[in-house]
Amino acid sequence: MATGSFKVSTSKNMHLVDITAQTTKAVADSNIRNGCCIIYNPHTTAGLTINEGADPTVQTDIIEALRKIVPLDHPYRHLEGNSPAHVMASLMGSSVTVFIENGNLCLGTWQKIFFCEFDGPRSRKVLWQITGD
Amino acid sequence: MATGSFKVSTSKNMHLVDITAQTTKAVADSNIRNGCCIIYNPHTTAGLTINEGADPTVQTDIIEALRKIVPLDHPYRHLEGNSPAHVMASLMGSSVTVFIENGNLCLGTWQKIFFCEFDGPRSRKVLWQITGD
Amino acid sequence: MATGSFKVSTSKNMHLVDITAQTTKAVADSNIRNGCCIIYNPHTTAGLTINEGADPTVQTDIIEALRKIVPLDHPYRHLEGNSPAHVMASLMGSSVTVFIENGNLCLGTWQKIFFCEFDGPRSRKVLWQITGD
Repeated sequence: MATGSFKVSTSKNMHLVDITAQTTKAVADSNIRNGCCIIYNPHTTAGLTINEGADPTVQTDIIEALRKIVPLDHPYRHLEGNSPAHVMASLMGSSVTVFIENGNLCLGTWQKIFFCEFDGPRSRKVLWQITGD
Repeated sequence: MATGSFKVSTSKNMHLVDITAQTTKAVADSNIRNGCCIIYNPHTTAGLTINEGADPTVQTDIIEALRKIVPLDHPYRHLEGNSPAHVMASLMGSSVTVFIENGNLCLGTWQKIFFCEFDGPRSRKVLWQITGD
Repeated sequence: MATGSFKVSTSKNMHLVDITAQTTKAVADSNIRNGCCIIYNPHTTAGLTINEGADPTVQTDIIEALRKIVPLDHPYRHLEGNSPAHVMASLMGSSVTVFIENGNLCLGTWQKIFFCEFDGPRSRKVLWQITGD
């Protein structure tokens, strides 16, 4: 088993950041050739998702859709004013899992791993754990 | 590997119940110091999520948002009348994964693990599996 | 550890396909009696979820709800015209995890595992990884 973390810098209030390269590096550093990589987000106003990375407009479309899906002007009780970000975090989820085969992440042709910032810009951190042999 | 389950009692129709203490106890009982804890929900009108636990209004805000996001008065075909709960279950997801380091759950500063009741109040059960050494 | 994949054929534009039988077969083929089964979807306009399988109307209700939840006629920028499918993929998630006990999937009484097609009909593929002993 290998564990670690890496930093993610987000530059917008809502921002999908491709973290596939850092994840690929984590797999290489782990020396694990076959197994499983779990990425975990320890923040409550951010999430993780796997989606298309080839066309960057998919990322902005996901953000725009989430802004339509989650009520932004509801009379929320949480006084920090970032309740929509907490809701989006739960909709996306706190971890993603990708298999590893021959040292490579088993992502689909168009898939990339994204850190989903919903209350940025901020400096964030992501944890990873890789198991296998 | 260690496995087990614990009960969750929900007291409202929609209710986010903090199950971090039971999960922490499962980790202690497992004697696994470094590895991974997966919590699994076997019910189809409930889910699991990780979100802020410090301010309880975040929990009620998530519930209120889900009641706005998921159509409640749609002419659903499922005759039990709890289709919105099934939809919310899929939006939250059926399992969460948290790393374990030195016998502790690697939750972020504000994170707690929540059982999400969407068709309560009920007596529910949650399964866990802990791997590592 | 055992890994593999199986094909999923979807016959509608939006279609929840029960893949519990294929997953059960994967567990049997793995000869792993106690552990964990992860199912992974490598496509960006599809997802995976665990929900009720007894009454098929739950599946159509989930699809109808997602068509209400995700804006279908938003001026999305992604030119392929399938942005709602990408959003739904992220809402459902890219993998599901089910425990294995005595060679059986630890699903709840009403639970089945569903491949969620959001841009079909298509021929799809699902990856699985089973760990344990």
